Amino acid sequence: MIDTSQNLPPRLAEGGLRVVALGGIGEVGRNMTVFEYDGRLLIVDCGVLFPEDQQPGVDLILPDFRAIEDRLEDIDGIVLTHGHEDHIGAVPFLLRLRADVPVIGSRFTLALLAAKCREHRQDPVLVEVTERERRSAGPFDLEFFAVNHSIPDALAVAIRTPAGLVLHTGDIKLDQLPLDGRLTDLGGFSQLGDEGVDLFLVDSTNAEVPGFVTPEREIGPVIDNVIARATQRVIVACFASHVHRVQQVLDVAVKHGRRVAFVGRSMVRNMGIAGELGLLNMPENLLIDLNDAMELPENEVLFVSTGSQGEPLSALSRMARGEHRQISIRPGDTVVLASSLIPGNETAVFGVVNGLARLGAHVVHQGNAKVHVSGHASAGELLFLYNAVRPSNVMPVHGEWRHLRANAALAIATGVAESQVVLAEDGVVVDLVDGIARIVGRVEVGHVYVDGLSVGDVGESTLSDRLILGEGGFISITVAVEASTGRAVTPPTISGRGFSDDPKALDAVVSLVEMELSRTEAEGITDTHRIAQIVRRVVGRWVAEKYRRRPMIVPTVIPV
Amino acid sequence: MIDTSQNLPPRLAEGGLRVVALGGIGEVGRNMTVFEYDGRLLIVDCGVLFPEDQQPGVDLILPDFRAIEDRLEDIDGIVLTHGHEDHIGAVPFLLRLRADVPVIGSRFTLALLAAKCREHRQDPVLVEVTERERRSAGPFDLEFFAVNHSIPDALAVAIRTPAGLVLHTGDIKLDQLPLDGRLTDLGGFSQLGDEGVDLFLVDSTNAEVPGFVTPEREIGPVIDNVIARATQRVIVACFASHVHRVQQVLDVAVKHGRRVAFVGRSMVRNMGIAGELGLLNMPENLLIDLNDAMELPENEVLFVSTGSQGEPLSALSRMARGEHRQISIRPGDTVVLASSLIPGNETAVFGVVNGLARLGAHVVHQGNAKVHVSGHASAGELLFLYNAVRPSNVMPVHGEWRHLRANAALAIATGVAESQVVLAEDGVVVDLVDGIARIVGRVEVGHVYVDGLSVGDVGESTLSDRLILGEGGFISITVAVEASTGRAVTPPTISGRGFSDDPKALDAVVSLVEMELSRTEAEGITDTHRIAQIVRRVVGRWVAEKYRRRPMIVPTVIPV
Repeated sequence: MIDTSQNLPPRLAEGGLRVVALGGIGEVGRNMTVFEYDGRLLIVDCGVLFPEDQQPGVDLILPDFRAIEDRLEDIDGIVLTHGHEDHIGAVPFLLRLRADVPVIGSRFTLALLAAKCREHRQDPVLVEVTERERRSAGPFDLEFFAVNHSIPDALAVAIRTPAGLVLHTGDIKLDQLPLDGRLTDLGGFSQLGDEGVDLFLVDSTNAEVPGFVTPEREIGPVIDNVIARATQRVIVACFASHVHRVQQVLDVAVKHGRRVAFVGRSMVRNMGIAGELGLLNMPENLLIDLNDAMELPENEVLFVSTGSQGEPLSALSRMARGEHRQISIRPGDTVVLASSLIPGNETAVFGVVNGLARLGAHVVHQGNAKVHVSGHASAGELLFLYNAVRPSNVMPVHGEWRHLRANAALAIATGVAESQVVLAEDGVVVDLVDGIARIVGRVEVGHVYVDGLSVGDVGESTLSDRLILGEGGFISITVAVEASTGRAVTPPTISGRGFSDDPKALDAVVSLVEMELSRTEAEGITDTHRIAQIVRRVVGRWVAEKYRRRPMIVPTVIPV
Repeated sequence: MIDTSQNLPPRLAEGGLRVVALGGIGEVGRNMTVFEYDGRLLIVDCGVLFPEDQQPGVDLILPDFRAIEDRLEDIDGIVLTHGHEDHIGAVPFLLRLRADVPVIGSRFTLALLAAKCREHRQDPVLVEVTERERRSAGPFDLEFFAVNHSIPDALAVAIRTPAGLVLHTGDIKLDQLPLDGRLTDLGGFSQLGDEGVDLFLVDSTNAEVPGFVTPEREIGPVIDNVIARATQRVIVACFASHVHRVQQVLDVAVKHGRRVAFVGRSMVRNMGIAGELGLLNMPENLLIDLNDAMELPENEVLFVSTGSQGEPLSALSRMARGEHRQISIRPGDTVVLASSLIPGNETAVFGVVNGLARLGAHVVHQGNAKVHVSGHASAGELLFLYNAVRPSNVMPVHGEWRHLRANAALAIATGVAESQVVLAEDGVVVDLVDGIARIVGRVEVGHVYVDGLSVGDVGESTLSDRLILGEGGFISITVAVEASTGRAVTPPTISGRGFSDDPKALDAVVSLVEMELSRTEAEGITDTHRIAQIVRRVVGRWVAEKYRRRPMIVPTVIPV
């Protein structure tokens, strides 16, 4: 179904709409979709991706902006569907390229973005919108619809241009008993369906999962049940943006006469914002400062903490290692991880769970109690969406290939023609022309890495070196040679890092290198690069034979 | 409950039995328990652990043999409960220390061990036993009981000494409809219970999971259903030792008129052994060589392959990357991962699933169909075990802390006194004296790493260097100085690997280093170590400030 050739996209046909994801298709994270009409651009979401094993040392992965770098002035706006990092995290990096792009989103989403931008010392142009509001950005006529997700105030966006009507769900689920009563606007979607949706971009995250997501409000009684039995301290960890999850924890705390302290920078910050916006309901005096909380009897306090993904520097990880400055876990304490287990984080999360269990805590997590529900529509809910919207063309977004394929199958099951389901990935150019969506080419996209303060200087070659170094360390051989003769003027200095704990591990290779250097001298080789190459080969062969390992071999030949 | 002090264990009381796990408690893998009575030793299992992120470059992790290294002649036997790597994989490394330790196990277990030892050019002393057989090894009177697990011919072992009766389950579950009709011998356990079990060592792996494991035979119809609808090639990946899983796949293949080719070295080897021992039932001519299979029509062949854990060099991973020499995946092919998803392997496994999905394959896995059941008893089954055995003392084994605690809770729920549940971890010494099991001390245990050809030379310091190198690479600075004056005779050679793709990334630090070298010369510093230290500090500070990164800084100062 997908043309994997690297053909450059043709000129967009007049009156057509172009869609290119610069991130978020073929992967989960760094969502960013660019729409083009009549020479103007609209961006929906601009998020980050968190690195995996194969990207060691990387802090964040950004969408690849190259395709729009020369067209910054054509951008009429960035629509943010909601405030999760994988939808807003890369905005400051885009604003570095052009500071005054209007950022359009709901109140809570923009509040989270503003806090993030303050950390980057940016003051973006914010355009607040709300559900069922209509507003244009250049030639794009936008309409917003309430959707339910694991963060408040999420929106789907309908984009009308003369090319047709596009609906982008953002992240979505169909909780029919949402805590805040704010349902996904299936009625609105249905009206759009009546009008005729030409292209439907749909969240694929849970398309493989059959059935329906359990309502968020069913978590409350489970947590209640756990806390009712707790006689000592209780710590609940969850995502710092999951206001409704935290709300339920607060309600339970009130019920059991426990005061609440927020632990962890992002938890304190986000709950502050949520409180200011009236998204958290609680009695006055429920909240207490962490230091004051330490003075309360153990059964009168509850900590709501970050660290549910096993982040090594988080408060919870520190507690699990017995290294938290204030909170030390005692046998009989209760810890609840009211959170998902993001693939890739298992080892870290279970490391925390085991650390807590070793210290004697009673640890409740997704694996032994229903303390988490997903924020993304399962297959059953996606069917409701397709049947409400009745789209002509479908483009699964937000997902790895397994998710995209599963989502495509659901669209087809509801009657969308297989030929009108566009399976794209990052960089694939999809044009909607005369009501038909088709893949027409590709733009180049890659991973853009943030490591420390700089963006983009760490690339595939650096990562590939890191992977080699991380697996096998390196052996360095340094020798000074007489520039004119190539004669070694010092014995070779050979040392390894990350190679062996045995200080004599490399002793045997010294004489081999010396022999080789005598040979190069005898042959009159004076080119230091060539000598270095020869040394590299000798040491590499020796280590492969003797140890069957592949450290990086780093020869340095200095002419003196 | 656990004394974490490092106190050396006292002398074992006369008539007492000592139990020390050198691996497998507090972790999942490298199971090895040492029993001591009257100066003699019995070992139960001797397996390997597969490394995680924090042990980069390591091939295998062995139990720590130090506690028995000086007592090799005291060992009366190694009992192997079954043939999985985490129970037998370290035997060749123990046999390197003493080649003639009798290895006691069931027929299939010993056949797998023998194949492994042949690869190590070893010819161990094998003692074949079968269920309900009684046999002594030194002062240890052993009795074996059939248990059901995800590999045929697994055994539990009862160990009688004058100190009391110990029962070790090995890995166990209670499938009541096992494919081979070989039930876990609950009746035998019950008889032991009547006799009085003083210490019960129990598999904890699934103690957190409520309920019961679905019978293995329910996998067959699911696979049948998948293959019935396949019109092209079918590839089923599963563990190479899971004979009953493979048996069900073979049965389905026969039903649908497909011939079967085994793919992957360990699959071919193990199924050969299983076939020879009569553990696989199939019509003659079902099996076909891989090359011949490629000539058959696509709907007349089925491949049973290794690679279900996403191992990068496995056949399945190669197929997913489009790099397998013979099998290239085409849209419409069906791939079944009839296997567990071992924590830590998620990224690799989903990488394979996505690669296959991208190529258009229909991928069936644990996440979207019931194509796997666990080999370990869930909580419900463990209750049956405790109620049959009615032990005086319990010691949960085979598990991380979360599993051990959950297993302890089950024991207590069936009436075992909380004080008689011994929560130990590797190295903790438990003595059974006068019918009471108690923690009396600790022996030193660590991780013993196999990397390439050598064992033990890669230790924590090498791994810590690898982690630093893997995260940030290194910057090397080489300079030759005049030995007598400390004057730099060459400009410093500065280069980075795994640091940046930008060739100019380090340019700015050269002059800083030169300035510093002028300073050290002016101060009359000639000690090369001290010069190196100073250079390291300058470069380290610069890189932290400019990049906010922490590469390894490797200065080499050569005196000429």
